[in-house]
Amino acid sequence: MTAYQQLETVFSRWTILQDVGGILGWDMETMMPPGSIGSRSEQLAMLEDLRHETLTAPAVADLLAEAEARAGDLDEWQRANLREMRREHVRSVAVPGALVVANAKATSTCQHAWQGARKANDFAAVKPLLAEVVRLQREIGAAIGDATGVAPYDALLDGFEPGSSEAGIDRLFAPLEEALPDLLAAALEAQALSPAPVALPGPFGIERQERLCRTLLERLGFDFTHGRLDVSAHPFSGGAYGDVRVTTRFAEEEFLSAMMATIHEGGHALYEQGRPHEWRNQPVGQARGMGIHESQSMIIELQAGRSEPFVSYLAAAAREVFDGEDEAWRAANIGRLVHRVEPGFIRVESDELTYPAHILIRYRLEKALISGDLAVDDLPDAFNAAVNELLGLTVPDDRRGCLQDIHWYGGAYGYFPMYLKGAMVAAQLFEAAVAATPGILTALGQGDFAQLVGWLRDNVHGRASLTDGDTLVENATGAPPSAAAYLRHLDRRYVGDG
Amino acid sequence: MTAYQQLETVFSRWTILQDVGGILGWDMETMMPPGSIGSRSEQLAMLEDLRHETLTAPAVADLLAEAEARAGDLDEWQRANLREMRREHVRSVAVPGALVVANAKATSTCQHAWQGARKANDFAAVKPLLAEVVRLQREIGAAIGDATGVAPYDALLDGFEPGSSEAGIDRLFAPLEEALPDLLAAALEAQALSPAPVALPGPFGIERQERLCRTLLERLGFDFTHGRLDVSAHPFSGGAYGDVRVTTRFAEEEFLSAMMATIHEGGHALYEQGRPHEWRNQPVGQARGMGIHESQSMIIELQAGRSEPFVSYLAAAAREVFDGEDEAWRAANIGRLVHRVEPGFIRVESDELTYPAHILIRYRLEKALISGDLAVDDLPDAFNAAVNELLGLTVPDDRRGCLQDIHWYGGAYGYFPMYLKGAMVAAQLFEAAVAATPGILTALGQGDFAQLVGWLRDNVHGRASLTDGDTLVENATGAPPSAAAYLRHLDRRYVGDG
Repeated sequence: MTAYQQLETVFSRWTILQDVGGILGWDMETMMPPGSIGSRSEQLAMLEDLRHETLTAPAVADLLAEAEARAGDLDEWQRANLREMRREHVRSVAVPGALVVANAKATSTCQHAWQGARKANDFAAVKPLLAEVVRLQREIGAAIGDATGVAPYDALLDGFEPGSSEAGIDRLFAPLEEALPDLLAAALEAQALSPAPVALPGPFGIERQERLCRTLLERLGFDFTHGRLDVSAHPFSGGAYGDVRVTTRFAEEEFLSAMMATIHEGGHALYEQGRPHEWRNQPVGQARGMGIHESQSMIIELQAGRSEPFVSYLAAAAREVFDGEDEAWRAANIGRLVHRVEPGFIRVESDELTYPAHILIRYRLEKALISGDLAVDDLPDAFNAAVNELLGLTVPDDRRGCLQDIHWYGGAYGYFPMYLKGAMVAAQLFEAAVAATPGILTALGQGDFAQLVGWLRDNVHGRASLTDGDTLVENATGAPPSAAAYLRHLDRRYVGDG
Repeated sequence: MTAYQQLETVFSRWTILQDVGGILGWDMETMMPPGSIGSRSEQLAMLEDLRHETLTAPAVADLLAEAEARAGDLDEWQRANLREMRREHVRSVAVPGALVVANAKATSTCQHAWQGARKANDFAAVKPLLAEVVRLQREIGAAIGDATGVAPYDALLDGFEPGSSEAGIDRLFAPLEEALPDLLAAALEAQALSPAPVALPGPFGIERQERLCRTLLERLGFDFTHGRLDVSAHPFSGGAYGDVRVTTRFAEEEFLSAMMATIHEGGHALYEQGRPHEWRNQPVGQARGMGIHESQSMIIELQAGRSEPFVSYLAAAAREVFDGEDEAWRAANIGRLVHRVEPGFIRVESDELTYPAHILIRYRLEKALISGDLAVDDLPDAFNAAVNELLGLTVPDDRRGCLQDIHWYGGAYGYFPMYLKGAMVAAQLFEAAVAATPGILTALGQGDFAQLVGWLRDNVHGRASLTDGDTLVENATGAPPSAAAYLRHLDRRYVGDG
């Protein structure tokens, strides 16, 4: 076996271990009995240890050097695979084992304490633990950054999407940050002039909602012979290659959220189901980071799923499932319901137009936390000031402020900006897809995603990690990620024709 | 860290990998989408490879030698743990890697082909594959036997319950084999004199059946905060330490089978839930082999669950759940239903009294397959002859003959006798438990298993693998396993008072 082939064996195990963790993680959120969290944590920690050991075994460094010396013998995908192997290896060996262990312990303790602190609205209770998490994340960022020649926060960003940097994200977000206040004002003005949406008359039986969810996933092209739909407290997409599992949640009073969550997670799932089978167990065959992953959920949920043609289809399908009859069930009203703009405190409940502000707040603050410009002590005040500046709201308590999201308490710094990048890339990809295949919009009116998903298979899913994310977007759309298409989209949907 | 402590680290991983496989295995039978079998097989194979590598790493042999040289420093449980580590190590290193791989491939191919062959009633289609499986099992038995100084079939038996041997099983089964024909004749005679059981009037709604199953598991003391009940094609108990998952299956026409399957699997689950927490991730903390495991399901299902007091409780509980009113619902009739004796072809559908014959047939034949005295070519004829001899029946086709069970096709030789040993041990343990705690029977009349399970916790579950199985039974009952209690039990239930 060549060095490269031996590396494929090593990385195949590394990837399958991740898949095993994916199934256990899904089980933990959907099936696991409550008392089993202790044994499950032991299992997941052991799998992580095994992945780390697999990657940092002394032989791997030698094999990488040898394979790189003979990279000329490799084809394009193999070379990209070798590049990804090197990347994972550099990042893994850069962080000392003791730091990995300290971080795992600190994030798990802090995340656990955060649940209670949020419930009790008591930031002070979790503050020292958060400070420790930030300190360790800074150390991890510095360790990887030293090895790769970038700043600590860049190293963390790169962990969520290879090739990302603060400078790149700043460039991407700047036009948006500038345009957003006027856009929001104009959207609220336009909204005030149009009829107020009327709430749909519930309750909506859970069984019927579930039936509609399954129909929507089928329309998306979700493959139920290689996937499942279940219920969890927070919707997610997970599982393993060839076994992709999405979840949603239901409430009897309202069904649109469950539908949107389902197609959002369905978008993630289509990406996973569309990865190239041949490369499924290699780094190059994995999805290309969080920004691109979010683009795939958002192109399905926000671009296609909230488009006028699809809303018409959805309105008709929902009327049939719920025996809807009165005026409130008309597509125009349902459109107004899903496009309602209303600044609020909670990120995950926010509408499409105010969502970017939530991310910009968090992006600004986490950069400052990692650089040390912002002390954890000062986080609540800084958070509230930013909300006031970007959303014009006065945060009433930390529960609705800096305690609302799990990310920072769980050690995820560099994750938030990927949501917004994903939304922007989704707009750019959708514009290109529709330009290339104009039938997409008409088909969405029939609830038919095949043309859109076909384009995504060719231009995104099937490309996996062959290139970095920005190159992927450039190859697909003719230009690297920018705010242009996103701003056009927001203007058209929320200001333009109303 | 001492050598012994380092070994605990190694074996902790080895054990947790098994638990991870347990959750994946449960998922495969209950939740997994059908198309995901390929990726799941890759995952399970990789976990097995990792377990094997963990155990056979060169350092482990040195650590074992070092720890054994200082065994005087260890306490009773640690010494037993070290003994179990050595046992697993000897068995693992004895089998060459190529043989492990060949066996995994042959058994998986043969098992897959068996499904089709059984359906098509076509033994010839699977015969060459079965011959290869037998050949490889013989090799594996010989390799382990060479290392441990026993014959090949003894080495295979020892894999299902440490310390087992053909001589020991022969000794155990001999009095039974001798007594069985008369016992069966006497039982059929007694049965002919008593009223025929009347079938319960169905259908029995699945939701109600499930409610009753959950009630029964609760009465057993099954801990639902560390376990689940689900549905699968074949009932089983699986999962992981602290997360024990049982399954059953339902049919609308008949509910007693689902109840009995549930408490049978519940008996396995109680054993797993009662293993000592401190030793959960060490070899000594695992259940003591198949024979003892089967004894725990059978003491719950056959000894307690089909006892007169419990049948009274069950009849009352079932009447309430199913609104049962007529005569058929009386406890006496339900007792006659669950104690009905009727020789038949299918092992898994057989009654308590004819079940031993099914095992004796398989035990006799698999010994001969492994020794080479019986060629795979001659298996169908030999099987049918044995059925004729022990059950007095003429097998109409191989589907109802040597094709009915998966075990041999999946490479499990030495497994069948453990079922019968389990039934015998169950009788012996139950007799001892009732002698020590006479209130057990009265409590069962209230559906209360607490006293019985308490005795099992002290004498079986909590002892885990501290001793070998026969010593465990001897410590619990005052005598090593024998046929005496089992024969007394069968005579009392099927001949004695009727």
